Amino acid sequence: MAHDLDLALPWLDALKWDDNGLLPAIAQDAKSGKVLMLAWMNRAALEATAATGEAVYWSRSRRRLWKKGEESGHFQHVQEIRADCDGDALLLLVTQTGGIACHTGHASCFFYRQTESGWQAADPVLKDPETIYA
Amino acid sequence: MAHDLDLALPWLDALKWDDNGLLPAIAQDAKSGKVLMLAWMNRAALEATAATGEAVYWSRSRRRLWKKGEESGHFQHVQEIRADCDGDALLLLVTQTGGIACHTGHASCFFYRQTESGWQAADPVLKDPETIYA
Repeated sequence: MAHDLDLALPWLDALKWDDNGLLPAIAQDAKSGKVLMLAWMNRAALEATAATGEAVYWSRSRRRLWKKGEESGHFQHVQEIRADCDGDALLLLVTQTGGIACHTGHASCFFYRQTESGWQAADPVLKDPETIYA
Repeated sequence: MAHDLDLALPWLDALKWDDNGLLPAIAQDAKSGKVLMLAWMNRAALEATAATGEAVYWSRSRRRLWKKGEESGHFQHVQEIRADCDGDALLLLVTQTGGIACHTGHASCFFYRQTESGWQAADPVLKDPETIYA
């Protein structure tokens, strides 16, 4: 298709940054395959991630670069960076320090399961969130 | 945190739809754990997905609902719908018809791996894309 990723461009330019200069980035545990979270990257975040091997995102709420784990200690060591066919989404294969990606103490941020009675928390809390940020 | 998903709201209202009324939705193979693609959903897409058990997305380029597989036959049967901690991303656990999610004939859209020399196609093409849409 016409909109596929253009391999002739420098790798950062080949990506289709959105109107805010961002792309969604999925973090997946490299070993278990668990999808841990979805965050956002701008060019600087992706460059920092590639250069350091540690996941750095763009925090839309705080409007600054955010090294995952800078407050919690739950860093993400990046094994591999992937882009999708049309270059508008990223996938990081990571080793998650402490096995906990979510500020709630769940392994994954995707712990709400849709049921007939609404969203239900489906996975165990592995660590008291108060102790994560203590 | 203050922005966590509010379980008191009806499930569709609990989600934090963006300014365009959309949320990113990750499709993951329920059996292999492979991340297949990232697409977008509006409320109608998510409602249709939940009601039918088949993944329906919002196509941003075509500006219409798009039942995954409607042209290729590569439908996604949805086993589970998940939301993340703050309700601004979705994760679908799916069974992918034909084992191919990507219009390029790759199992996953995330087949480009970042290397020192740029993006490199890292996974095999399982089906000639010309035959997918023939």
